[in-house]
Amino acid sequence: MRAVQVTGYHEPLRLTEVPAPEVTGPFDVVVRIGGAGVCRTDIHILEGQWERKSGVVLPYTIGHENAGWVHAVGSAVTNVAEGDKVIVHPLITCGLCRACRSGDDVHCADSRFPGIDTAGGYADYLKTSARSVVRIDDSLEPSDVAALADAGLTAYHAAAKASRRLRPGDRCVVIGAGGLGHIGVQVLKAITAAELIVVDRNPDAVKLAVSIGADHGVVADGSHVEQVLELTGGQGAETVVDFVGEGGATADGIAVLRRAGDYHVVGYGENIDVPTIDVISTEINFIGNLVGSYTDLCELMVLAAQGRVKLHTEKYPLDRFQDALDDLGAGRVRGRAILVP
Amino acid sequence: MRAVQVTGYHEPLRLTEVPAPEVTGPFDVVVRIGGAGVCRTDIHILEGQWERKSGVVLPYTIGHENAGWVHAVGSAVTNVAEGDKVIVHPLITCGLCRACRSGDDVHCADSRFPGIDTAGGYADYLKTSARSVVRIDDSLEPSDVAALADAGLTAYHAAAKASRRLRPGDRCVVIGAGGLGHIGVQVLKAITAAELIVVDRNPDAVKLAVSIGADHGVVADGSHVEQVLELTGGQGAETVVDFVGEGGATADGIAVLRRAGDYHVVGYGENIDVPTIDVISTEINFIGNLVGSYTDLCELMVLAAQGRVKLHTEKYPLDRFQDALDDLGAGRVRGRAILVP
Amino acid sequence: MRAVQVTGYHEPLRLTEVPAPEVTGPFDVVVRIGGAGVCRTDIHILEGQWERKSGVVLPYTIGHENAGWVHAVGSAVTNVAEGDKVIVHPLITCGLCRACRSGDDVHCADSRFPGIDTAGGYADYLKTSARSVVRIDDSLEPSDVAALADAGLTAYHAAAKASRRLRPGDRCVVIGAGGLGHIGVQVLKAITAAELIVVDRNPDAVKLAVSIGADHGVVADGSHVEQVLELTGGQGAETVVDFVGEGGATADGIAVLRRAGDYHVVGYGENIDVPTIDVISTEINFIGNLVGSYTDLCELMVLAAQGRVKLHTEKYPLDRFQDALDDLGAGRVRGRAILVP
Amino acid sequence: MRAVQVTGYHEPLRLTEVPAPEVTGPFDVVVRIGGAGVCRTDIHILEGQWERKSGVVLPYTIGHENAGWVHAVGSAVTNVAEGDKVIVHPLITCGLCRACRSGDDVHCADSRFPGIDTAGGYADYLKTSARSVVRIDDSLEPSDVAALADAGLTAYHAAAKASRRLRPGDRCVVIGAGGLGHIGVQVLKAITAAELIVVDRNPDAVKLAVSIGADHGVVADGSHVEQVLELTGGQGAETVVDFVGEGGATADGIAVLRRAGDYHVVGYGENIDVPTIDVISTEINFIGNLVGSYTDLCELMVLAAQGRVKLHTEKYPLDRFQDALDDLGAGRVRGRAILVP
Repeated sequence: MRAVQVTGYHEPLRLTEVPAPEVTGPFDVVVRIGGAGVCRTDIHILEGQWERKSGVVLPYTIGHENAGWVHAVGSAVTNVAEGDKVIVHPLITCGLCRACRSGDDVHCADSRFPGIDTAGGYADYLKTSARSVVRIDDSLEPSDVAALADAGLTAYHAAAKASRRLRPGDRCVVIGAGGLGHIGVQVLKAITAAELIVVDRNPDAVKLAVSIGADHGVVADGSHVEQVLELTGGQGAETVVDFVGEGGATADGIAVLRRAGDYHVVGYGENIDVPTIDVISTEINFIGNLVGSYTDLCELMVLAAQGRVKLHTEKYPLDRFQDALDDLGAGRVRGRAILVP
Repeated sequence: MRAVQVTGYHEPLRLTEVPAPEVTGPFDVVVRIGGAGVCRTDIHILEGQWERKSGVVLPYTIGHENAGWVHAVGSAVTNVAEGDKVIVHPLITCGLCRACRSGDDVHCADSRFPGIDTAGGYADYLKTSARSVVRIDDSLEPSDVAALADAGLTAYHAAAKASRRLRPGDRCVVIGAGGLGHIGVQVLKAITAAELIVVDRNPDAVKLAVSIGADHGVVADGSHVEQVLELTGGQGAETVVDFVGEGGATADGIAVLRRAGDYHVVGYGENIDVPTIDVISTEINFIGNLVGSYTDLCELMVLAAQGRVKLHTEKYPLDRFQDALDDLGAGRVRGRAILVP
Repeated sequence: MRAVQVTGYHEPLRLTEVPAPEVTGPFDVVVRIGGAGVCRTDIHILEGQWERKSGVVLPYTIGHENAGWVHAVGSAVTNVAEGDKVIVHPLITCGLCRACRSGDDVHCADSRFPGIDTAGGYADYLKTSARSVVRIDDSLEPSDVAALADAGLTAYHAAAKASRRLRPGDRCVVIGAGGLGHIGVQVLKAITAAELIVVDRNPDAVKLAVSIGADHGVVADGSHVEQVLELTGGQGAETVVDFVGEGGATADGIAVLRRAGDYHVVGYGENIDVPTIDVISTEINFIGNLVGSYTDLCELMVLAAQGRVKLHTEKYPLDRFQDALDDLGAGRVRGRAILVP
Repeated sequence: MRAVQVTGYHEPLRLTEVPAPEVTGPFDVVVRIGGAGVCRTDIHILEGQWERKSGVVLPYTIGHENAGWVHAVGSAVTNVAEGDKVIVHPLITCGLCRACRSGDDVHCADSRFPGIDTAGGYADYLKTSARSVVRIDDSLEPSDVAALADAGLTAYHAAAKASRRLRPGDRCVVIGAGGLGHIGVQVLKAITAAELIVVDRNPDAVKLAVSIGADHGVVADGSHVEQVLELTGGQGAETVVDFVGEGGATADGIAVLRRAGDYHVVGYGENIDVPTIDVISTEINFIGNLVGSYTDLCELMVLAAQGRVKLHTEKYPLDRFQDALDDLGAGRVRGRAILVP
């Protein structure tokens, strides 16, 4: 089959022929790829940023946002069958450790991450596990939802966690109206009645956020902290969900967080650097957010099937992977770039 | 009546005669002081550290850890009567704002803090509110429990919040086995079956912590992070409760925090300074803890009455306030110093 | 002022002149009535059903769903001022008992209930407490929201409690699409993405429920249990909210409840009569729901101001109270009847 | 190997030779039995009470409370190895359905129940799954803990759920101080500071409960409801955990439940028959409890290893199974009867 592989760091990906994956274990699932999301992490991989962390052996196939059709299943697989339309959870988890047994599979003690530390989805076929495939509604197409497998799932996870304390009348500040923030706003809108205030440097992104449900849009132009405080009666918001995490976002976010508020960290880059006396005197919380669990992905697919979460995508044939990466790097992709074999 | 007052910053407190407080409002409660805790904050007040923050007008009476007997009540007070033995919650709260109506009175939008921004309890009598007095069990003495009103209440609040996710098999690291840590260990022991690992620089404090229920004591001698990791199977603890918050405690605490763990900030001094990528990749949480609510104080008094929470105290007559402060400053107080009028 | 009073059981209400209430206590609030909801409970009161339970002394003024403008306030009232538009929580609570201090004021150990056990709002003025008045948005009119004070608040409370476990993909069966069910559907729609299945005997009520957001409407015609089971893949729904509670509703509701499901009891009349072996073998829960708390009412008023919760009302001048009661008794009221002084 | 089998209903069990189970699937685990609990359910099986419900084909081996040593494992088993000491969760669950993926494996959509619907543990060997075995501490012996696998696990599950709302000062009434109640009291004592009031008809059982930590023991002699009300200030208890569920226990239990209280149903036999108006006017909850999950069993084994949960057992060689059943039926077993191969 065709596969786009990393053959060395700081050099281009290469399209090559490799043997298609086969079912060898009882819980194996081979998926025929319908769409593979092109993610900024893929660029970072090529830059060598994940070399040491992943320990992956080159060459290998990248691509960690995948959806498609079940092509073959192992003997013990009961939750999907050949031909099923599925989205692929980014992790392969053991199912036996304490985290997995608690439904918190993201913290599995023995997980693999196709596209990062083993063969991913920039290819005709991907091998994953029964524990990683979620059947999607007939109305959804793999190439439309593929990008929800990781970026969207992270946004869903954070928004769903944040929503647990949001009551009508509460305010939620969403920092960042890019890909993740875009999903986050749609999810928060679907599952809470909180007032949503979206902050982004890009006026167009702010406008888009308002058009999909944000109650207020604030352009981060230097006066944004004051604007948000004004929108929250001078007290700040009960919850901040920060999809940026760099360029001063955390200091701004803390400045607009109300006493006893929750600060959800999703985006990353800079440090949280906050005096403990401020943490205790206002009794605020900082809450980490990684990618969502398998059940989170199931729930996100429900929202997608209901039409409550949508993502604009631009599709590229698999062999135009370089164009997709170039467009992403140059900021020419609206929404998300998807490779379609 | 007698009152010990701040008459100027950077000068000694002064014992003087002032008019005894009287009931003027419907919810007023005047308490005859049975014991007033001497707290490090009192020293900080004299150093002027709270001058700007409290905005208090000098002279005023300090003392924010109070217990005694109800002396007089306003017309609308129904929860206590003259002669009742009570401990005094450190805040006077409005009862009408959103926080108060949610049971979260610590975040009252309009609170006062006797001993900090209005007359406190280094005196024969203290004026507070019906919303601030908790009747205590017959078996308890005001001078024995006074120090639980603030320091103890803070420790209870943090331990009780931490306990909500602690299941048998979970580990909880308690950083700091001083006054607060001492209470924290007793509370955690009473309401969870988590394994408690106490860390302190002072070997005697560690020993004491083990004697009152900690499962493991670790002296912070430079190898303590490794020791704690070893005690937790190399993975760290599900929960850290940090009663220190300075001198490198937070870096150590983060180093022994497990994936998806909760870090409870109670002590303060230094900054939390942590890369957002670490927060998200391990999905850890930092949880602020201020003093406990009124209902927290009720619960703590139950534990005290059950004999599950005890505090060693050293008592001083009111007019020996200077000795008490000097002993506290010099580290000569075992447990807590209490002024007894 | 004018007041409509119960002068005897099993005889008509009487409009009479009584002295207007005055502020006598520090937390008293006198409200000029803008609207008073006419409730089926009022008919039950006249039938003597509450005689023993309330112990009220005749004659007295009925009416427990009230909204209007603040007319006068006691000396300690800080949350509202003369002229404020307010809705009135049905209970006057003490603010000092354990329940009140936990934010659970509905279970106040010492509450009164205007319109039931003391003078209510079928009148020009009503006396209540600072703890019972919620300011409403400028865009709302007292006579439009009055009925949300009790019936609406009960529905909100149940829907909000139910929503805490509802995730996307979960199903919620709402039994009863009358006044309460109507509010319940709107609230569930606003704060969850659960699939809503509404069941009612009245095809018009079902139609209306679907028009305001229910995903499926089922007419209770004898085949409704099978229809609901079919809509839930044969497994039943994760949650049932039963606004009926009589005429066989509970047996039907249990029949459509999934394993580990929550059955919210709101309406009443018949017994829950269920074998303990069924409760444990399916591990289902029955959850009682009384009227909402003060903070629930604040949240409901947010949804009303956002236009997410609306109630059709038919208004009657105060002196046409008998017409309103007659119309209600005869089923001629669409939505809710409101007396306007 | 030897196995004790049901060969027909209403006739004695028979000890016979059958082939030992072998590993055939990747997640299979064969356990050499160290102890198999003899449970009242086993008697009910022989009486034919489970015939239709289980649909099991005769002859088959009974015994659903098992512990022992891992004898052989399938190719995909990573959580245990040959020779490990283990306790066996009573269910074999699929690991792929929504319930399993949420950590709620007890509600698995496709589970089997060895000893009930497939071969159980009254034998030399038992075949189960990797998802069902929990390694136990070196200090524990299989024959000592076997009875915790089902009866104990149920008690743990209920007590742990109940504890989530129990704060210091709350009261918890435990109805039934037999096998399950005995475990329940020990668990509640370990993880809460609630005041425990144990009610049982048997004065010796009450005495025993007090000796292991109950704060109050009440003999159910007709005056017990009044006694419990007196112990709870006339208001009833915040929580009731009912391990009996028959003979009038539920009516008594409801009579001692406080407003807004939780009634945990564990024992079964009679109906809960309660007017909906009582459920809503006091806002009480009825909470079903089935056996605990896999993680519950892990947590219970922690408490057992800590010495916080102990169970008296009487051991019988496997071939004396009939004596064990006879003794159980005649009430001659103190604690729990265990068959030891």
